[in-house]
Amino acid sequence: MENQELFVPSVHSSLEILEWLSKEEHKYSTLTDLSNNLHISKSTCLRILKTLTAKGYLSYNSDSKNYSLGFSLIPLGIRSQEINDRIGRAIAYLPQVAEDTGITAVLVKRIDHRLMYIGKQEPLQKIRLTVTVGETFPIHVGALGKCFLAYLDTATRAALLSEYTTNGTFPTYTDHSLTHLDQLLEQIDQIRREGVAQSNGEYNVGINAVACPIFDERKKIILVLGGFTLNPIQDTDKWEEMKKKMIRHAHKISELII
Amino acid sequence: MENQELFVPSVHSSLEILEWLSKEEHKYSTLTDLSNNLHISKSTCLRILKTLTAKGYLSYNSDSKNYSLGFSLIPLGIRSQEINDRIGRAIAYLPQVAEDTGITAVLVKRIDHRLMYIGKQEPLQKIRLTVTVGETFPIHVGALGKCFLAYLDTATRAALLSEYTTNGTFPTYTDHSLTHLDQLLEQIDQIRREGVAQSNGEYNVGINAVACPIFDERKKIILVLGGFTLNPIQDTDKWEEMKKKMIRHAHKISELII
Repeated sequence: MENQELFVPSVHSSLEILEWLSKEEHKYSTLTDLSNNLHISKSTCLRILKTLTAKGYLSYNSDSKNYSLGFSLIPLGIRSQEINDRIGRAIAYLPQVAEDTGITAVLVKRIDHRLMYIGKQEPLQKIRLTVTVGETFPIHVGALGKCFLAYLDTATRAALLSEYTTNGTFPTYTDHSLTHLDQLLEQIDQIRREGVAQSNGEYNVGINAVACPIFDERKKIILVLGGFTLNPIQDTDKWEEMKKKMIRHAHKISELII
Repeated sequence: MENQELFVPSVHSSLEILEWLSKEEHKYSTLTDLSNNLHISKSTCLRILKTLTAKGYLSYNSDSKNYSLGFSLIPLGIRSQEINDRIGRAIAYLPQVAEDTGITAVLVKRIDHRLMYIGKQEPLQKIRLTVTVGETFPIHVGALGKCFLAYLDTATRAALLSEYTTNGTFPTYTDHSLTHLDQLLEQIDQIRREGVAQSNGEYNVGINAVACPIFDERKKIILVLGGFTLNPIQDTDKWEEMKKKMIRHAHKISELII
C-alpha cells in the first residue's frame, strides 16, 4: 500500500478474506482458519465476516461453520466485466480459442509483480486442464510470464525481474525451470521475433504452454492469451499449427478490444 | 443489520460503494458523488476508495476524477459462480432461454424484501430490452415478484407484503400496477395452478413479463426465471406458446441445479 495513512485496515482485511476464499483449497474456511492465516484478530475477523455475510458477499454454513464466497459477488463481477468492457470482450472471446485449439485457454493480467488469471475456458473434453480464475503466479515463469515480460519496456522488465533474481539466478519450480536471467533474456528476443512464447513444464511438470500478447490502442501489452496442454511440444507440426492459431486469436482479441 | 455490534462500518461502506458503482447511472462517480450520496464523510470515503483502488477493486481515472468498478471483481465474480455452482449453472443456461424465446431472459434471487437480477441474457436483436445485473426491485411487482411470492409459504409472504401495503393497498408504479392486496392474492392462486406468472406494464410502461419458479431439491423456490418483451400480451397464441417454453426452461434449470 503506497500510503499507510490512506488505507483502511478492516476494508483491506475484508478484501483479503474474499481473495483467500476464492482459492480452490480454501473455498470453505472457518473463522479460525481465516483469522490465523490472514493474521486478523478473531473478534475483528468475526465482525468483518458478519458484515460481508449480511449483504450476501459471503455464505455461512452453520453446520460446518464454514464461510464461502456469496452470490452478491456474481452481479458485481458481471458488472465489472461490462464496465471494463475491453476485458469483458476479451473474456467473452475465450470459448472460440478453446474450441478452435482444443486446449485450455486463459487470459492473464498483471498485478504488481505477479500475473492473475482473469478468465479461462476449457475445451469440451472429459478430462481437461483447468486453472482457478483469481489465482496469481510469478511474472517470470512459463510461457505466459515470458510473453508478458518480452513486451514490456526494458526498465520496467528489469525492475520486475529484480524481485525474483539473486545474482542473476531464479528460483526453480521444476527440472525444466529457467534458472538464469541470461537464458530468459535470450528467449525474450526470440519471443519478440516470433510473436509467441512457449514453455515445457517450466512451472508445472508435464504441462506445456503457449502464450501471445494482447495490445491496447497504444500498442502496449495489457493481457496475455495463454493455452495449456499436455501434448508434447516435440510433435512439431501440431505444435507449430497451434502457435499460429494462438497468434491469430490474440490479434483478433487485440482488434476486438480497441 | 441484525446486530450493530457485529458490524464494521467501513466494510459496510465499501460494499455500498461497490453496489452504487454497479448501477448504470452511477458507474462513473467522483469522491464527492460517493461521499454525498452514501453519507460517508469525505475523508473516510477517500481512504476506502484508495484501499479498494490499490487492490484493483476500483479503477480511478485521474483526468475525470471518476471511480469505477475495477477488474479484480471479475475473478471474484466468476469464482462465486463456480462455488455457488447451482446459481452458476442456472446463469449459464440463460443463453438457451433467450435464443429459444427471442426475449430477454433474467434470473432473480431474493435479498431481504427485494429481488435482485443475478443474471441476464439478451436475444440477438439490434434493439432489445436489457436490465442491469445487481439491480434490485420490490418483491411484489410484476410477473417476477408475483411468481416469487406465489411459491412462498403463507407466513413468509404475509410478512414480506406487510412491508409494502398500507390498509391493503400497494404503491403504484404505472396505470397497470396492482393496487390491492386482494387482487394479488387472487393472481397468486392462478399462478400456482398454471405454474407461470405474467404482467403487462405493471412496473414499467409497455414492458410485459413472464416468470416461472425454480426450485431446489427440497421443492423450495430459490430463483425466478423471467422474460421481458415489448410484444403485446393480447397476441394470445404467441404468448401462450412463450409461457409454455418458459415453464419448460424453468423445469430444466430446476433439474440442472439439483
